[in-house]
Amino acid sequence: MKNAQAYRNVGRLAAVVALVCVAGTASFTQGRPRARDLGIQPGAGVTGALNAITDVTGVRVGQVTLVDGRTVRTGVTAILPHGGNLFREKVPGAVFVGNAFGKLAGSTQVQELGTIESPIVLTNTLGVGVAVDAVVRWTLTQPGNESVRSVNALVGETNDGGLNDIRSLPVTREHVTAAINGGREGAVEEGAVGAGTGTVAFGWKGGIGTSSRRVTQGQNEWTVGVLVQSNYGGRLTIAGVPVWRELKPVASARTIESGQVNEGPRAAGREPQAASR
Amino acid sequence: MKNAQAYRNVGRLAAVVALVCVAGTASFTQGRPRARDLGIQPGAGVTGALNAITDVTGVRVGQVTLVDGRTVRTGVTAILPHGGNLFREKVPGAVFVGNAFGKLAGSTQVQELGTIESPIVLTNTLGVGVAVDAVVRWTLTQPGNESVRSVNALVGETNDGGLNDIRSLPVTREHVTAAINGGREGAVEEGAVGAGTGTVAFGWKGGIGTSSRRVTQGQNEWTVGVLVQSNYGGRLTIAGVPVWRELKPVASARTIESGQVNEGPRAAGREPQAASR
Amino acid sequence: MKNAQAYRNVGRLAAVVALVCVAGTASFTQGRPRARDLGIQPGAGVTGALNAITDVTGVRVGQVTLVDGRTVRTGVTAILPHGGNLFREKVPGAVFVGNAFGKLAGSTQVQELGTIESPIVLTNTLGVGVAVDAVVRWTLTQPGNESVRSVNALVGETNDGGLNDIRSLPVTREHVTAAINGGREGAVEEGAVGAGTGTVAFGWKGGIGTSSRRVTQGQNEWTVGVLVQSNYGGRLTIAGVPVWRELKPVASARTIESGQVNEGPRAAGREPQAASR
Amino acid sequence: MKNAQAYRNVGRLAAVVALVCVAGTASFTQGRPRARDLGIQPGAGVTGALNAITDVTGVRVGQVTLVDGRTVRTGVTAILPHGGNLFREKVPGAVFVGNAFGKLAGSTQVQELGTIESPIVLTNTLGVGVAVDAVVRWTLTQPGNESVRSVNALVGETNDGGLNDIRSLPVTREHVTAAINGGREGAVEEGAVGAGTGTVAFGWKGGIGTSSRRVTQGQNEWTVGVLVQSNYGGRLTIAGVPVWRELKPVASARTIESGQVNEGPRAAGREPQAASR
Repeated sequence: MKNAQAYRNVGRLAAVVALVCVAGTASFTQGRPRARDLGIQPGAGVTGALNAITDVTGVRVGQVTLVDGRTVRTGVTAILPHGGNLFREKVPGAVFVGNAFGKLAGSTQVQELGTIESPIVLTNTLGVGVAVDAVVRWTLTQPGNESVRSVNALVGETNDGGLNDIRSLPVTREHVTAAINGGREGAVEEGAVGAGTGTVAFGWKGGIGTSSRRVTQGQNEWTVGVLVQSNYGGRLTIAGVPVWRELKPVASARTIESGQVNEGPRAAGREPQAASR
Repeated sequence: MKNAQAYRNVGRLAAVVALVCVAGTASFTQGRPRARDLGIQPGAGVTGALNAITDVTGVRVGQVTLVDGRTVRTGVTAILPHGGNLFREKVPGAVFVGNAFGKLAGSTQVQELGTIESPIVLTNTLGVGVAVDAVVRWTLTQPGNESVRSVNALVGETNDGGLNDIRSLPVTREHVTAAINGGREGAVEEGAVGAGTGTVAFGWKGGIGTSSRRVTQGQNEWTVGVLVQSNYGGRLTIAGVPVWRELKPVASARTIESGQVNEGPRAAGREPQAASR
Repeated sequence: MKNAQAYRNVGRLAAVVALVCVAGTASFTQGRPRARDLGIQPGAGVTGALNAITDVTGVRVGQVTLVDGRTVRTGVTAILPHGGNLFREKVPGAVFVGNAFGKLAGSTQVQELGTIESPIVLTNTLGVGVAVDAVVRWTLTQPGNESVRSVNALVGETNDGGLNDIRSLPVTREHVTAAINGGREGAVEEGAVGAGTGTVAFGWKGGIGTSSRRVTQGQNEWTVGVLVQSNYGGRLTIAGVPVWRELKPVASARTIESGQVNEGPRAAGREPQAASR
Repeated sequence: MKNAQAYRNVGRLAAVVALVCVAGTASFTQGRPRARDLGIQPGAGVTGALNAITDVTGVRVGQVTLVDGRTVRTGVTAILPHGGNLFREKVPGAVFVGNAFGKLAGSTQVQELGTIESPIVLTNTLGVGVAVDAVVRWTLTQPGNESVRSVNALVGETNDGGLNDIRSLPVTREHVTAAINGGREGAVEEGAVGAGTGTVAFGWKGGIGTSSRRVTQGQNEWTVGVLVQSNYGGRLTIAGVPVWRELKPVASARTIESGQVNEGPRAAGREPQAASR
């Protein structure tokens, strides 16, 4: 893999929503197969070694999952573009907003300057302020940042208020910091974990999903990685098969589907044009 | 004044930077004359009764000023579009970004939906996360909002790190809440107050300024109000007079000018096109 | 069908590329079945009576096809939002640009004012100027427009230079005017016709396609119609079936695929957000 | 002057509308002094040698003025970023739109790719189509462009319909080509000439104006040049002096002011952010 640095990229997962979790219980994905393990191979591309955003050299992901009693189902997912000082070694970046009914923070500076200078944090809708504050504090305390007095925190969200008591504001600064500090290379946990703990997609349990593809052009080879916090309505189709015609979510999940779920902006990439595709 | 409701508007102050504060001491404006009191009448428009954003019916402004020892010079300025439930009675709004090297939060949803559902809060660059969090909490607790689980906080900022120890993060949730709860109709304090406590403009002390104009079209009459957190470089010209050719800021202020000051987005209005003018 | 006027809409055809024409000969679609006639029913929506953009009340489509010798394969497709005076009775409109490597004309005013005041004309890349000129002249001569002296022509394009001698500039003002004047309600000819005469998609012959869906919300029912000038690369998938794995375009078409084809903006709708989906 | 290539720039003239022409007769500027010749020196910057857009190395301007009988007062102004093959040697560019009620063509591709590949042509509102067509044809015929089959023409306009019989469509392809081919380095004619022949500003005769400034940063020095087709309302202020309070346009000009004049987008620069300032 060459030139991966030039393509540290977080794009929008288009057709490859890899996660399938049951409704009703917010279980983790340990031991569950991924779609490709079941023979579902959408598209024509070749995946990276892990089929995860962490296939892009240097990218780290950290997640904190909050499950408390019967009402709290939320969390934080942090993506670190690399393991160095992000503020000092900014990465080229962009934000594409498909549906701006969301509380995304940090997009305007990224579009102005074309760079990302912080971890990218995903959480729930009402936790954005806390997450921005945590990213700012974390950045100020990194070695080498002793004189930094301007930090652009890039924080996205979706609303998990259907499965999570979002008004109790369970996400704290410490949770966000822990997700960032927990950032690791290697396999990424998927499903009802981190910022996907309480999300819903297609009327079924949504969550965190990730994937990667190798792209070659002439002599060059890059890896493009994506991570998605899936939270929306619609009808489930897998690799062209209209699953929604045969399988319906159970009643409790249907209730969820009618809850207030909104699809926040989830994409940041090398440039806006790329991010939108 | 008719139809003022239809034009609750926070535009960008173009040529009318009304505030004049001395450098060196961050003093308040009590007892100081405003530009018009000195005979400076820029433009051709007729001002509202107070020449302030609060001339627009219903608009309230609240400010908290933080001056602590020799290093903390910052604060919060909150604009409430009206005195009712802002989330339930959203106002038409827009955000225009002139220079997006800033940490503005909440702009994407305003542009998508065309409405503002929260107080507009101004503070320093590193206080945006805390301010978003405070606006969310304040909104959740307003009567009538018991089932609200999505809040778009609109928070702007400029960097007062030249006069303020911004890295000490002095702005707390309580300060922001106090500014919102302190929102009042009537005259607006200008100068080194609220979010303008530590700002610098044209090498001189900047701060909060406000103005208003009456606009008539046929039988209709509106009031357009603006409030600005001035913080930028440039050369001071007043009503066309190149003051900068005669008067230079004192040395300490010149040091300030070379500090890192960035001009955040400061405008929200009825529509993006209007906001940009 | 109620409220159709409120939804005169030209959106982007997402998954429903209905046209399948052979490569090599630029034949028309008469006598050819449409995808639904073959049992291919993508998605869950119910189509309008014709499954065409003209299912939206008032919408008219006119096309001029230019096939001359072995080298000219191009044309013009005009969409009239209604049959009245378009300049006097403007329609709400928007333009969404997915990939702006194109020569779209008229988009900036549509985005500023939110209205379309002319026929929407599609043609080839180098014919945009001629088409703008023709739309202006046509508008000036419509009854009731005797004092009009400002016309915003909305003209889209794709580059058919692989199958068409585009440098010979075969499209004239008269062709554009004829397409506009030929606008008719009822079924829309699809395939290698009008602005789709020389286009290529998925390595196969592209062209003009159209579709419609009925949308209900509470008591209201609308019809959403789309028309697409398909011209791009990619791999052909039909209703989830990866056709590209089994069928390859013949050699001549593969040559085409490597030609310079670019996907111009093809969508205009009620609002940008809707247009983008 | 170093690095001028890196800053071939066409920005928006902000406060420096240099041209003052009398109303009533559309006279040229030969023999008339420019503002600086009269001692009016706005701002603090140092101009280039000619105080014109052509102070930027390589930039050429060509103009065709159409004055026919009592009704035709219009024309074409062409700016060539350099004297070579513009399509083969594209220049970095951007378009900033302040008020999009205009018929600007070519902006979307410039924003997508960040490059300008044609002369920038200014003319009247209804001549945009003809100008696009002319720029396409001119580009196809330039040596080295024998295989070019995609051209993005960048054409701006304002509406001179108050002083010009714009509905007679007097601008032809040949006029546009002549303006392009007439592009020259050196002094630029200002006033009622080219695309400014029939324009109105501040109720007085508007027209073409140009200026330049030298910009230094560390060891580097650049020249920024602007050219403006002034056509708008407002009140005339010169270097801060409210001329409008003392001098009123004569009756005929006041009639003009009430005519339909709109301010089209007139700016193209190195990047959108720069262009907007």
